[in-house]
Amino acid sequence: MKPLGPIPAGYTALDGELAIAGVKASTLVERAGDTPLFVYSRDLLDRRVAQLRAAMPERLGLHYAVKANPFVPLLKHMAGRVDGFDIASGGELALVRDAGIDPSLVSFAGPGKRDAELEMAISAGVTLNCESENEGHRALAIGERLGITPRLAIRVNPDFELRGSGMKMGGGAKPFGLDADRVPALAKNLIAAGADWRGLHIFTGSQALDAEAIAETQGNVLDLADRLAQEIGVPLPKLNMGGGLGIPYFHGDTRLDLEMVGNRLAERCAALPDTLQDTRFCIELGRYLVGEAGVYLCRIVDRKDSQGETYLITDGGLHHQLAASGNFGTVVRRNYPVAIASRFDADPDEEVNVVGCLCTPLDRLADKAMLPGAKVGDLVAVFCAGAYGASASPAMFLGQGPAREMLV
Amino acid sequence: MKPLGPIPAGYTALDGELAIAGVKASTLVERAGDTPLFVYSRDLLDRRVAQLRAAMPERLGLHYAVKANPFVPLLKHMAGRVDGFDIASGGELALVRDAGIDPSLVSFAGPGKRDAELEMAISAGVTLNCESENEGHRALAIGERLGITPRLAIRVNPDFELRGSGMKMGGGAKPFGLDADRVPALAKNLIAAGADWRGLHIFTGSQALDAEAIAETQGNVLDLADRLAQEIGVPLPKLNMGGGLGIPYFHGDTRLDLEMVGNRLAERCAALPDTLQDTRFCIELGRYLVGEAGVYLCRIVDRKDSQGETYLITDGGLHHQLAASGNFGTVVRRNYPVAIASRFDADPDEEVNVVGCLCTPLDRLADKAMLPGAKVGDLVAVFCAGAYGASASPAMFLGQGPAREMLV
Repeated sequence: MKPLGPIPAGYTALDGELAIAGVKASTLVERAGDTPLFVYSRDLLDRRVAQLRAAMPERLGLHYAVKANPFVPLLKHMAGRVDGFDIASGGELALVRDAGIDPSLVSFAGPGKRDAELEMAISAGVTLNCESENEGHRALAIGERLGITPRLAIRVNPDFELRGSGMKMGGGAKPFGLDADRVPALAKNLIAAGADWRGLHIFTGSQALDAEAIAETQGNVLDLADRLAQEIGVPLPKLNMGGGLGIPYFHGDTRLDLEMVGNRLAERCAALPDTLQDTRFCIELGRYLVGEAGVYLCRIVDRKDSQGETYLITDGGLHHQLAASGNFGTVVRRNYPVAIASRFDADPDEEVNVVGCLCTPLDRLADKAMLPGAKVGDLVAVFCAGAYGASASPAMFLGQGPAREMLV
Repeated sequence: MKPLGPIPAGYTALDGELAIAGVKASTLVERAGDTPLFVYSRDLLDRRVAQLRAAMPERLGLHYAVKANPFVPLLKHMAGRVDGFDIASGGELALVRDAGIDPSLVSFAGPGKRDAELEMAISAGVTLNCESENEGHRALAIGERLGITPRLAIRVNPDFELRGSGMKMGGGAKPFGLDADRVPALAKNLIAAGADWRGLHIFTGSQALDAEAIAETQGNVLDLADRLAQEIGVPLPKLNMGGGLGIPYFHGDTRLDLEMVGNRLAERCAALPDTLQDTRFCIELGRYLVGEAGVYLCRIVDRKDSQGETYLITDGGLHHQLAASGNFGTVVRRNYPVAIASRFDADPDEEVNVVGCLCTPLDRLADKAMLPGAKVGDLVAVFCAGAYGASASPAMFLGQGPAREMLV
């Protein structure tokens, strides 16, 4: 038996079935037309924003990292609720524009921005987080050609990392941002060339569950920002402090102590150095905002035994849930939170393997999991599916195509 | 320094540049309109088919596993060259039909076939490799409802595996096929119910480079097929022996000794038991047929240094090359064969990291690789990109979208 990850708060049973935002899974599937289906809950999105607003210092802006989930109705929903959006490509810029989001609230980071993307972003008034000297100079040249003052910030490769983060984005040689010691020279160049100077973006890692580590890193980020602002010689207009706040995916993961992160940051904000007194701060969250608000629903197509093991074969799979299958930046596969949605309040009474419909042994959704007995036609729910699900999976693999998506 | 994988045979330099099918990479990109671009070579596809025809016993049919690369022009090209096509979904059935392929040459395996897919396949005259009793009975019922005799084979979960294979598809409990000891009963049921009995599909693994292991496994497959045919009580009409033939991706990988595989299989075919005398045999190859015939071309967008390391940042990445990035069923990341296409005949003289444009540390194409000095604008080639590239990668991740594809 292998344990399942913890089911996030906010999901209930109705007539024995999983209900999302008060609606039964089977009803949602009926409305959507078919499985596989991603369902995102407005209510859970709002609750998470409210938790963050309550825990964090008031002056801290909340940005949504579009890469986590670029579903346009979800972007529209977030538009009234967060203070900014971070994008990573021209394609994501098109999506935020489709969602009616004001481009002046948008910043664009990413190590390989093409000229066409820079031009699109500068024309729209998006802030560019420059990832290299070369990119900064290209942005200036494009701005000049267009007759538009580019809004430029610099992404910093910090000389420290976020301890215990799932993805390290700082500490050591990196393709992201400029090494900290080269930032002042470029910043002075950009300011001297007449750019609309927007400050710094310091991203140190993601998916950390240790509040102490996050607080320590945020302190380091503020220290580094102060030092760089002093060297640049002007107060820092804006500081994107990155993200890093993780959610529990696996058995044994402990929920992040958000209050501790907020309190520690508030202490720091109460004693800021001169360079940062008037700085607008923000954090940039993707997974933490939307991850737990999404559920992936698929249907059991076959149930079979093989050499003493039971397999529930679904119409879903890694083509929509690459990370849950254990094939996206994972060394040891562990089970996400998974449930039989059709029998959400029943006790687990059998050990099964839940797999996808793809003809590859990589396509696993839950290994040796204790679940209530399930039959062909029942719905399976994979939780923590709101971030890095639909858009981060190879939807066209084996001719399958994308899943349906729905905001409720 | 970390070594690169071996560049497959058949690629040459022209005016210092990589040439594919005699055409320079830069010309191909110009024709396609932009990078990133997958280029598949008709000539290399044909050479590989010819090698297989020369090495393998004449009676062995050659099937193409569409999942490896479903690009329709490539399917059309293969149509005149192989004896059958294996699909894994209704989506792939639509693709082979788009390519004008005769559905009677097509067989359909996959553990989670939905009723709509079974109906589509039975209507078209596709052979179904049944993966469970349940699926066999559903196929019979759908055939009866449609008034069409379904063409049915059974996929066997063999009680042995292909030693040294990258993906094990047999040996132990599996979601694929029926455990061998339950095959005869289902086969008798299907035959008694009037199905057009098409025999067995025994798939044991993939991506093996050890000819001895493949030969031994093919022997085991023939033994198992004989035993099952005896128990079923009728000579076996057809046997899909699976695939398993691998290609070298990484430094130190040794090319498969195809002649040895062919010779050993010929010996076995010269002394077949009665049950298999009139059997039509085939092997089902995806990666081995198309993997080395494809190259992924992307362009260097930025070149930067960070803490003593050099990064070449391209407009490609894991959204098209998930496997090459080391994030698809890989435990330890190793470098695929990668080259600076713009300087294909130059000697390597610097150590660089080649990364994609995605804002994630997972997006790596070559780590600490020795390559000729390269500048912004140069083209990078990732080889072994013909199989499990475009369709097996999360093209929509970070708003990027699919790569261009071209058959030359």
